[in-house]
Amino acid sequence: MTNTLQGTSIIGFSRGSETTATLHGVNPATGETLEPHYYPARKEELAKSLELASKAATPFADTTPKKRASFLNAIATEIENSVDELATRGPLETGLPEARIRGEAGRTCGQLRMFAQLVEEGSWVNARIDHAIPDRTPLPKPDLRCMLRPLGPVAVFCASNFPLAFSTAGGDTASALAAGCPVIVKAHRSHPGMAEIAGRCIQKAAQDTGMPEGTFSLLFGAQDLGQALVEAPVIQAVGFTGSQSGGTALMKIAAARPQPIPVYAEMSSINPVVILPEVLAEKGETLAEGLFGSLVLGVGQFCTNPGLVFLPENGTELFFKKITELVSDGAGATMLNAGTASAYQERVKELSESNGVTTLALADGEGAPAIFSISQEAFTNDASLQEECFGPATLIVTGPIENLPALFAKLEGQLTGTIHATEAELSANTTIVRTLQNRVGRLIFNGFPTGVEVCPSMVHGGPYPATSDGRSTSVGTLAVERFTRTISWQDFPDSALPAELQEANPLNIKRIVNNTHTS
Amino acid sequence: MTNTLQGTSIIGFSRGSETTATLHGVNPATGETLEPHYYPARKEELAKSLELASKAATPFADTTPKKRASFLNAIATEIENSVDELATRGPLETGLPEARIRGEAGRTCGQLRMFAQLVEEGSWVNARIDHAIPDRTPLPKPDLRCMLRPLGPVAVFCASNFPLAFSTAGGDTASALAAGCPVIVKAHRSHPGMAEIAGRCIQKAAQDTGMPEGTFSLLFGAQDLGQALVEAPVIQAVGFTGSQSGGTALMKIAAARPQPIPVYAEMSSINPVVILPEVLAEKGETLAEGLFGSLVLGVGQFCTNPGLVFLPENGTELFFKKITELVSDGAGATMLNAGTASAYQERVKELSESNGVTTLALADGEGAPAIFSISQEAFTNDASLQEECFGPATLIVTGPIENLPALFAKLEGQLTGTIHATEAELSANTTIVRTLQNRVGRLIFNGFPTGVEVCPSMVHGGPYPATSDGRSTSVGTLAVERFTRTISWQDFPDSALPAELQEANPLNIKRIVNNTHTS
Repeated sequence: MTNTLQGTSIIGFSRGSETTATLHGVNPATGETLEPHYYPARKEELAKSLELASKAATPFADTTPKKRASFLNAIATEIENSVDELATRGPLETGLPEARIRGEAGRTCGQLRMFAQLVEEGSWVNARIDHAIPDRTPLPKPDLRCMLRPLGPVAVFCASNFPLAFSTAGGDTASALAAGCPVIVKAHRSHPGMAEIAGRCIQKAAQDTGMPEGTFSLLFGAQDLGQALVEAPVIQAVGFTGSQSGGTALMKIAAARPQPIPVYAEMSSINPVVILPEVLAEKGETLAEGLFGSLVLGVGQFCTNPGLVFLPENGTELFFKKITELVSDGAGATMLNAGTASAYQERVKELSESNGVTTLALADGEGAPAIFSISQEAFTNDASLQEECFGPATLIVTGPIENLPALFAKLEGQLTGTIHATEAELSANTTIVRTLQNRVGRLIFNGFPTGVEVCPSMVHGGPYPATSDGRSTSVGTLAVERFTRTISWQDFPDSALPAELQEANPLNIKRIVNNTHTS
Repeated sequence: MTNTLQGTSIIGFSRGSETTATLHGVNPATGETLEPHYYPARKEELAKSLELASKAATPFADTTPKKRASFLNAIATEIENSVDELATRGPLETGLPEARIRGEAGRTCGQLRMFAQLVEEGSWVNARIDHAIPDRTPLPKPDLRCMLRPLGPVAVFCASNFPLAFSTAGGDTASALAAGCPVIVKAHRSHPGMAEIAGRCIQKAAQDTGMPEGTFSLLFGAQDLGQALVEAPVIQAVGFTGSQSGGTALMKIAAARPQPIPVYAEMSSINPVVILPEVLAEKGETLAEGLFGSLVLGVGQFCTNPGLVFLPENGTELFFKKITELVSDGAGATMLNAGTASAYQERVKELSESNGVTTLALADGEGAPAIFSISQEAFTNDASLQEECFGPATLIVTGPIENLPALFAKLEGQLTGTIHATEAELSANTTIVRTLQNRVGRLIFNGFPTGVEVCPSMVHGGPYPATSDGRSTSVGTLAVERFTRTISWQDFPDSALPAELQEANPLNIKRIVNNTHTS
């Protein structure tokens, strides 16, 4: 059931028009230009998508949970119906293997259905009720009820490295739609075809389940389009996954608006991994194998790639021997696009030339793994070594583990921090764990940071610059809260309240009533 | 049990030193300078308070809920022990009557005890557990657990209009301490003596309950001190209640830091009140009396003061007659300080000279009530009429109620929106209510906006510029969440987890386990 790709933006229920073609997908393996041409959204098309989103905001916010859940489930079904088309187009645009594209489609549909379930169950709105006490002295207590409500239209920027799960129909879109916010997606130049296929799925699902037209638009365009989108008064929040420079640029635009808005940018992280002496002695080679596996997964193109490893000063020989062998024998692979490949090559070169850095191994070819080592002291003296190297390279810092708390205090914010230790070592080194905790969104014990489970307890976030807003997560059910604010109703008649706050609890959700959790 | 006021900052468990005195309280009723002199914190004193807060951050974050609750309760007890001193000093510094100061002390202690109870009960941390599924295919599911954790040291700015409840030991301080964040307060120049008394209470409570020294500091100083505080890398969030210019200045400083931090500024709101025709016909005079009472409460110096009223075009005679009488007969009163009094006078003059504005009544004297009217059209044409007039003045906009949704779409964000209607009118005018909802943090039916109940369902917040961050509230238990972020633990042994996340649930809190609420 392949449809022809049209190359035009999706503006509500219609399509944009053809203009001067300036965008097209490129096969990163061959450098070939891919058909069709993609037409940047014209100013009037951006304006139309904003106008439609503005009109859709209240009716979409007020859809019943059941209806909004059916919309999210319908998107998942449409993506499943398009999975062969995605699996054909994806590898051409991204260099990612077909199996990865199919796996990511599964994850994307899983996320959409998770949010559908969350919305349908309904308790996520955190409904609270405090009954009136009319005869309280000196003043009567009013009846107060509150719940989370959607913020309004959200701009979502697609990520280069997750053409499905963090792109058009990815986590930001799914969580914003779940919250009840219309979404305008800006496609990533790297995979416009996948954006169009996913966008068509959302458009069809919105029509089939009776959503207001402006609930979703997808725009093709360059950086100026992204800037105009974030500047638009209609937009009330921004979701972004990408580089630190891209994310901080959006933060600046959002903060400079007459009405500043929240930006949820997931940016850069080097995901420190600490290995303590006992566990290193026990299974140094196994740990080297585990690290290598995490390092080269997806050609290192994951936000949670382990780019920094802390080892003790002694007992590191077997580990170094093994990781050096693995990296030396490692093969390169096509990276997501020419820009990513050359940026990786450049950063590897910079690292290898940095003061105090020894190159332990560096395989040949595009996207080839690389491994470096440095002393604690030299690492501390060069803050630039904390810059992300997007790809399969890691820097191993060796030195006394007693110094780690002081070192961690100077680490930038990270998505994850991993500690390998025996249980006895873990208990004996609480200060190391505790200082690491202050710098990360997720702590991992005896594992590796790649692999981000989509579930209620996941935090895929972390202190700046890992994300723009360390209070939030872009993966898991908590992601929905990013696009909401709490509103309070005082002394309203029951019939004028949202169903979630009505006395009889018609939606049968968990609530906090008079400061007591209902069951 | 009056102690002598010293005029020096409180730096952890010690006091600052005397410098060149440049600050002092002023009695707004007489213009008299009040003893003692207040000494601006020196650079080294600011640095010391920051260093102490940084050192205290982890041990204070890791205090048990019981211990942190005992600290908050001890602050309340100390304030109660100092209430006579506060009630003597307060009226001198603020012009507020003694009864108000005593009432506000009660509210302040109530807030502290509410947060103590919240912390001791413990479920507020939103603990979630997802158990491992080791045999899941294709990949095992890890064990994941998450909960809210404190952000780190918080800077709190005292408000002029609530010398206790939104100042040194007020809502921002109480909620930040409840979250587990050390607090550095910048005193307001208007009531340094009350700041010192409250600060001494917190200092003593911290010592008596064994908190780390840097848990609390109180600094006296001018604007440059506030700027230096927000710029300090140690500070991780800001709480502020005050003017829009003050709040936006702090937002800019926070956004320009190498690590941007959240600012929770509660700034300006004119709190629209809508009166629909039927209810106006039924009880126009009573409504005029209610509005007048809300308008002049506390000399109009409340964030929720009703500064804007929408009336239908007809049937307004009795209402206008009554409100005009009441305002004409109304007396002025001493305002908080000379700056507030002259700013109010100036803004009243501006309003009276604005295009299309009719002055209905304007009483004589400082802080005297004022009432103006204008047509919908003239109101729409002059955005400056939405600027807050801090004091007992209100602007009544008359015109067809059919136009209200379009008018509300152009309203700036507000803390509150009030609708007076019969129940039949409310049902018949859902679009008016719904568009108002989009602009406010709290909707009130048949009441008035002043009087902010402190309870779990309260939202004292609202879209920009009512606050800097419309997702949050500065009153009620939800305020604690502003100073937290969620952290996730993956595959940690039970003994290395925080008590809140341990399998046996030793604190007996409500949790979400495997996506199911526990009871």
